[in-house]
Amino acid sequence: MTRIDAVDLFLLQVPDFDAARDPVKDTLLVRVRAGEFEGWGECEAAPFVSLAAFVTPESHSTSQPIGASVLGERLEDPADIARMAQRIAESSMNVLQAPHIFSGVEMALWDALGKRLQEPVYRLLGYEKAFPKQPYVVQPFASAPEQTYLDMRRLVRAGYGAVKTGWNGFGGGDFAADRDQLAAAREGLGRDGRLFLDAARVWGNDVAAARSYSHLLDAFDVEWVEEPFDATALGAFADFSHYHGRKRVAAGENVHSIAQARQLLDIADVGVIQIDCGRIGGIAAARDVALYADQRGASFVNHTYTSHLALSAALQAYAGLERHSLCEYPMDRPSLSWAICSEHLLPDGEGKVSAPEKLGLGLPVAPEAVLKYVVDTEIRFGATLLYRTPSIG
Amino acid sequence: MTRIDAVDLFLLQVPDFDAARDPVKDTLLVRVRAGEFEGWGECEAAPFVSLAAFVTPESHSTSQPIGASVLGERLEDPADIARMAQRIAESSMNVLQAPHIFSGVEMALWDALGKRLQEPVYRLLGYEKAFPKQPYVVQPFASAPEQTYLDMRRLVRAGYGAVKTGWNGFGGGDFAADRDQLAAAREGLGRDGRLFLDAARVWGNDVAAARSYSHLLDAFDVEWVEEPFDATALGAFADFSHYHGRKRVAAGENVHSIAQARQLLDIADVGVIQIDCGRIGGIAAARDVALYADQRGASFVNHTYTSHLALSAALQAYAGLERHSLCEYPMDRPSLSWAICSEHLLPDGEGKVSAPEKLGLGLPVAPEAVLKYVVDTEIRFGATLLYRTPSIG
Repeated sequence: MTRIDAVDLFLLQVPDFDAARDPVKDTLLVRVRAGEFEGWGECEAAPFVSLAAFVTPESHSTSQPIGASVLGERLEDPADIARMAQRIAESSMNVLQAPHIFSGVEMALWDALGKRLQEPVYRLLGYEKAFPKQPYVVQPFASAPEQTYLDMRRLVRAGYGAVKTGWNGFGGGDFAADRDQLAAAREGLGRDGRLFLDAARVWGNDVAAARSYSHLLDAFDVEWVEEPFDATALGAFADFSHYHGRKRVAAGENVHSIAQARQLLDIADVGVIQIDCGRIGGIAAARDVALYADQRGASFVNHTYTSHLALSAALQAYAGLERHSLCEYPMDRPSLSWAICSEHLLPDGEGKVSAPEKLGLGLPVAPEAVLKYVVDTEIRFGATLLYRTPSIG
Repeated sequence: MTRIDAVDLFLLQVPDFDAARDPVKDTLLVRVRAGEFEGWGECEAAPFVSLAAFVTPESHSTSQPIGASVLGERLEDPADIARMAQRIAESSMNVLQAPHIFSGVEMALWDALGKRLQEPVYRLLGYEKAFPKQPYVVQPFASAPEQTYLDMRRLVRAGYGAVKTGWNGFGGGDFAADRDQLAAAREGLGRDGRLFLDAARVWGNDVAAARSYSHLLDAFDVEWVEEPFDATALGAFADFSHYHGRKRVAAGENVHSIAQARQLLDIADVGVIQIDCGRIGGIAAARDVALYADQRGASFVNHTYTSHLALSAALQAYAGLERHSLCEYPMDRPSLSWAICSEHLLPDGEGKVSAPEKLGLGLPVAPEAVLKYVVDTEIRFGATLLYRTPSIG
């Protein structure tokens, strides 16, 4: 029987981090070993806290370490992964960090299981084939519209026909400045470029403020606006979705449970749900949300700004759903995230990306990147060594 | 100006823990020092993970350590605590563990602030006076009804007129055994005893199963049934509340945000909301839920099974709301939780307990208990000592 022999956690951090240069500061990689098979995954957000949730000493019956539900378990078919997820939902119910750490662990489990069963993960998830998706890249507004225009031109020349922009004060009240930025982005992208906007919760709970932007979004053909409100402002989302058009309102990147995602679809009534496999609890949870969104007539898209390992995991979750045809795509640039994989998911001749036709997640982790960025960490709890950074070898 | 000079975390654990003997295995105490003032608080659930969330290295803009929003901040009036809570909600949005660690930190901030402003915390929260509450204690069903009867008799002799029971297989399908247990509990308590039942999520999402127990609960005058369903089964709650009676359905102990609590009241339609100050993000968050429940015609009650420090924090949150007259009360028994405080909140001549008429939370922590139970812990992250157990002295 194939059992999970080891789960190794590697906390990576950019030395001398510079927010102006480095898109990502740190991350947590997970390596699973089960018999002769190895798998890798990546957790999103607060890597050290997620690591702690895996190795924490046993506490009361609903606050158990995530490791206790994984180590030594059988890994032979998809039901084994579902069983571990269910066990964590029960025995780690009061470890709030559980979904974030399990996200990376679960990716690694699927990667290893795909190798064992000689299949890409998407097939193990029940999909027949992997449909290509159109990538969109993320490019914040520059400090001045002239530079925003140039940034967009550069992306078009690099072959990207879809861009999400926003931030840098957008939506904060200077309507003319916001119009100029959107105009510059649209001009840079050209008439055929697809443009999306991330409002980054700028309107809080204020539907009127968001409504005042609706016409501007129309004027520059912004396909959807992301996170106009705080995640808990479900009523504001519902009002604005009704006004602006449900299919033109997106949210979901911070979701860390299927139940939360369903509320965004059912109560907030967003038409585009954006799920991060590294936060929601892994690939199967994202797949469940994708299927639910499909039933509801909403669109599913991934939220991914880390490695192409995380991107592959994200693509598996909705690979077989042809109608859901967009993909948030971390582009090629010098970064910790890009360095993690020794191969990447590059756009094909038509500019599309797909879940790889390889076993598991299909993206090898580069040992030299782990060696370069890993931070040696040690946790002692009384006489117990709870954690020490493992060897990459 | 009074600033927060230090936040010290103490992870306590029962050596040679025995679930049959020890009601609690471990906990996390928080000591805040601000100028000449000191305050204490207690976090609930997975203490090591909560500790990690306080000391974690800086990560991206919404995954900042909780400590970064607290250390060095001004502590002169209640608005300072609100400001810190707001900052954590933004800059630690993607540290899922944030509410649990901030719960204990926030208690300690109120405790210190009460000493500085020479007031009990409840007055700083806007209440004029602290109304006495009737304590109920928690006593699980014994393995046989005869023992359940004896356990209840013992509690009545000890002066407790209200008991919450449950567990030990209750609700799992052996209807006759469940009836015998409830009958024994009612007989032991006597006709005037107040009886509550914790169903501990036994019916999952199955409304029909819960309904089949409704008549039994009536027959033995069970005032309310707690957590009949999983926390996310809001629809099941609403159906059952409609059937069994809203005021007779309780939930909320695992809630870790005000938004979640409001959903239980607004969507699940429970009539009794049970909030743990050590989980929801502290006293002010619990107070906000209490005021909202009051508006909605629902009842607020604390969830507390740890120390009397946590009990005092819990009582402050709804001290001034006379209609909300019950209190979950950790009773006197040899335990880590009991040892934490050198004084306790004992029932008055009428068997009631109240938030203490003392400065802050009014319950001194016993240094000898900290010394006895503290586990020396050390976290090294690269060249940085992220955490080492501080001295109690």
